[in-house]
Amino acid sequence: MIALSQMGLNAREAAYRLGTVSTDQKNAFLFRLAELLEEQIPAILKANAADIEDAQGVLSPAMIDRLTLTDGRIRAIAQDVRNVAGLPDPVGEVFDEFENPAGLHVYKKRVPIGVAAVIYESRPNVTIDSACLMIKSGNAAILRGGKEAIRTNLALLAPVTAALRAADLPQEAIQFVDSPDRVLMSKLLQMDDWIDLLIPRGGAGLHEFCRKNSRIPVITGGIGICHLFVDQSADLEKSLPVIRNAKVQRPTVCNAMETLLVHRAVATEFLPKVCAALSPEGVAFKADERAFAILSAADLPGVRVEEAIEGDFDTEWLALILGLRVVDDLSQAIAHIRAHGTLHSDGILTEDQENAKRFVSAVNSACVYVNASTRFTDGAQLGLGAEIAVSTQPLHARGPMALRELTTYQWVIQGDYHSRV
Amino acid sequence: MIALSQMGLNAREAAYRLGTVSTDQKNAFLFRLAELLEEQIPAILKANAADIEDAQGVLSPAMIDRLTLTDGRIRAIAQDVRNVAGLPDPVGEVFDEFENPAGLHVYKKRVPIGVAAVIYESRPNVTIDSACLMIKSGNAAILRGGKEAIRTNLALLAPVTAALRAADLPQEAIQFVDSPDRVLMSKLLQMDDWIDLLIPRGGAGLHEFCRKNSRIPVITGGIGICHLFVDQSADLEKSLPVIRNAKVQRPTVCNAMETLLVHRAVATEFLPKVCAALSPEGVAFKADERAFAILSAADLPGVRVEEAIEGDFDTEWLALILGLRVVDDLSQAIAHIRAHGTLHSDGILTEDQENAKRFVSAVNSACVYVNASTRFTDGAQLGLGAEIAVSTQPLHARGPMALRELTTYQWVIQGDYHSRV
Repeated sequence: MIALSQMGLNAREAAYRLGTVSTDQKNAFLFRLAELLEEQIPAILKANAADIEDAQGVLSPAMIDRLTLTDGRIRAIAQDVRNVAGLPDPVGEVFDEFENPAGLHVYKKRVPIGVAAVIYESRPNVTIDSACLMIKSGNAAILRGGKEAIRTNLALLAPVTAALRAADLPQEAIQFVDSPDRVLMSKLLQMDDWIDLLIPRGGAGLHEFCRKNSRIPVITGGIGICHLFVDQSADLEKSLPVIRNAKVQRPTVCNAMETLLVHRAVATEFLPKVCAALSPEGVAFKADERAFAILSAADLPGVRVEEAIEGDFDTEWLALILGLRVVDDLSQAIAHIRAHGTLHSDGILTEDQENAKRFVSAVNSACVYVNASTRFTDGAQLGLGAEIAVSTQPLHARGPMALRELTTYQWVIQGDYHSRV
Repeated sequence: MIALSQMGLNAREAAYRLGTVSTDQKNAFLFRLAELLEEQIPAILKANAADIEDAQGVLSPAMIDRLTLTDGRIRAIAQDVRNVAGLPDPVGEVFDEFENPAGLHVYKKRVPIGVAAVIYESRPNVTIDSACLMIKSGNAAILRGGKEAIRTNLALLAPVTAALRAADLPQEAIQFVDSPDRVLMSKLLQMDDWIDLLIPRGGAGLHEFCRKNSRIPVITGGIGICHLFVDQSADLEKSLPVIRNAKVQRPTVCNAMETLLVHRAVATEFLPKVCAALSPEGVAFKADERAFAILSAADLPGVRVEEAIEGDFDTEWLALILGLRVVDDLSQAIAHIRAHGTLHSDGILTEDQENAKRFVSAVNSACVYVNASTRFTDGAQLGLGAEIAVSTQPLHARGPMALRELTTYQWVIQGDYHSRV
């Protein structure tokens, strides 16, 4: 492998060229990549099988599942690549145009950020996702995948490099750190001279490590202790499927709900219904004192409910476990979310427009919902067409990040030989 | 002084309250602050005199000049405060509104960033600038001024605190680290749990220190090796005053020009004119080989020109020194700016629209000019009404940052009990 600093230099050079290439040229890369991925399915599956074999008994079944590719999965990835080709190119977009007091014509123009590093674990699809979104947004990238997926990632990288070449784009636009050495990762985090943006994709540990050790600005996110609050005025019948969706549809992801807050005025009626509906799906419950009392008094055969202990409401379960808490009113719901939330996705179920407004104004999460499941926090679901990360930090971009969020802007100022007075 | 961690907690609490206060309440603070500043002019001048006395013989005359307040200067600061009250409040602004494929009503809403830290040197007006812009944009701030201005800063902080109280805003919205202990500064840079954004205002050394030592995202900027390129097609007569303005009007600031690039086709005619025009203003010249040969051949009594040496084109002079270089063409001009610029402000003087377009497309500086002085890179000059910093880094905001750049956004998603399919 070439030295990291050389990779940084190469990436900067590639980014400079990428900044001015046409949309057509970037799309040519994407279409060619999709073709090559489909052509090389046998080679990719072979490499993946070798990674999976090594992982048996070492990684958890969930991790092995994330690592596993199939013919269908690779075809779906190729289709995602074609979808990115169909998305509008943000680079060059002009906005905030005005004439300033001195008569200058001023506007902002979207430009690529430059060089990004993506550090990720297990899921090899991130290799292709990142390559596509970075190239389409005009950025170069250095990728660092986990060692458990190293053969798969290299097999996926081959068509990326070939497609860059075919589209007459610099091969160094997408580079891969193919050594599992963790010292290299630490070194990468110090390369702020060459890398403008760091995107970790993985668990809380990886995010924390990057935030504490990186000189490069980090997009932290992906940690979701998400809440729904059932207001007194909520349509309880309509609320139930939303709650089920938020908890059960895919419990292992960051936008799944971890805690349900219920207004005390409807708690006695509603909490047993929630448990009766979610229990057959395999959900177990951690209830606060009041919720536990209500559920204990109800006759709920087969429902697994225990009293919540210290820390339960601060845990991202990523599993079929749901925290339940009875709150006195909207203010207490907001206070709970403020104390225990992660600024990811939180919602209110209500028929009261004033309460919806107060909730939206007081809850400072990246995504705030009124009468919808938190599961919509996703670039494709919301309508951005793609997603590189979900940001829960306040700077640059919040929530789902797609192509536009991988750009910045520059000011263009046009005059007629203007001097400042 | 209270412990830094307590200041962080207080700031977070204050920011939470500030996020939801009305524009009127924030403006009430600003108007009261302007009044109090004018009322307390004698006390502020007294404190300032004490700081200046201590600085005699210790600081350079330029630094003492930056430190010095006068009756007129304080009245001007008070007027600036009233101007901020007149600017639109960015908080709550709705943008990027759409209906997503699932039928959800989706929009972004501008919200404050949270808590900012401002670290600055000498200039005490930053205390008031920061307080105004932070409060108007709904953010809490922790300020850390230099020890040379400590009495002045505390005298300026008294009316800030009183005005916050008068407007029924939390006093902890603006806190000041009143100890010169540098260990505290290092500690402040680690407080990423409480502080969302760090804005250094000072020289290159301060920016570098913050970038290398901060866990908080840093807005770096303010370092300007700015260029103007005189294209072959430029109207040379009209170009001359723009060049003078960019170099001479205020040479000590970051948006002043450091290097003039001249197309070889017009160099022999134009370079002597540049030197003849700027020399009486006290400008000395560092010329590359070709420029030096041209100027040596011309008869230019009293003009101070010497051959540029290694590193000259990489120096931010902040003084009446101008680098001169003859370039073969637009491409060489762009390559020079890429090699020696700081991504701050660079411009082309040209009558050729194609060349203007190529320059704007290839030069990736925060501000790119066509036929105008680089001195317009300033919030007030461009028309933003104010300025907290000039960012030359790619994330979050670039170029002059004012109120809107001190906000972020959140997604609001409204449904009718929608679940994800």
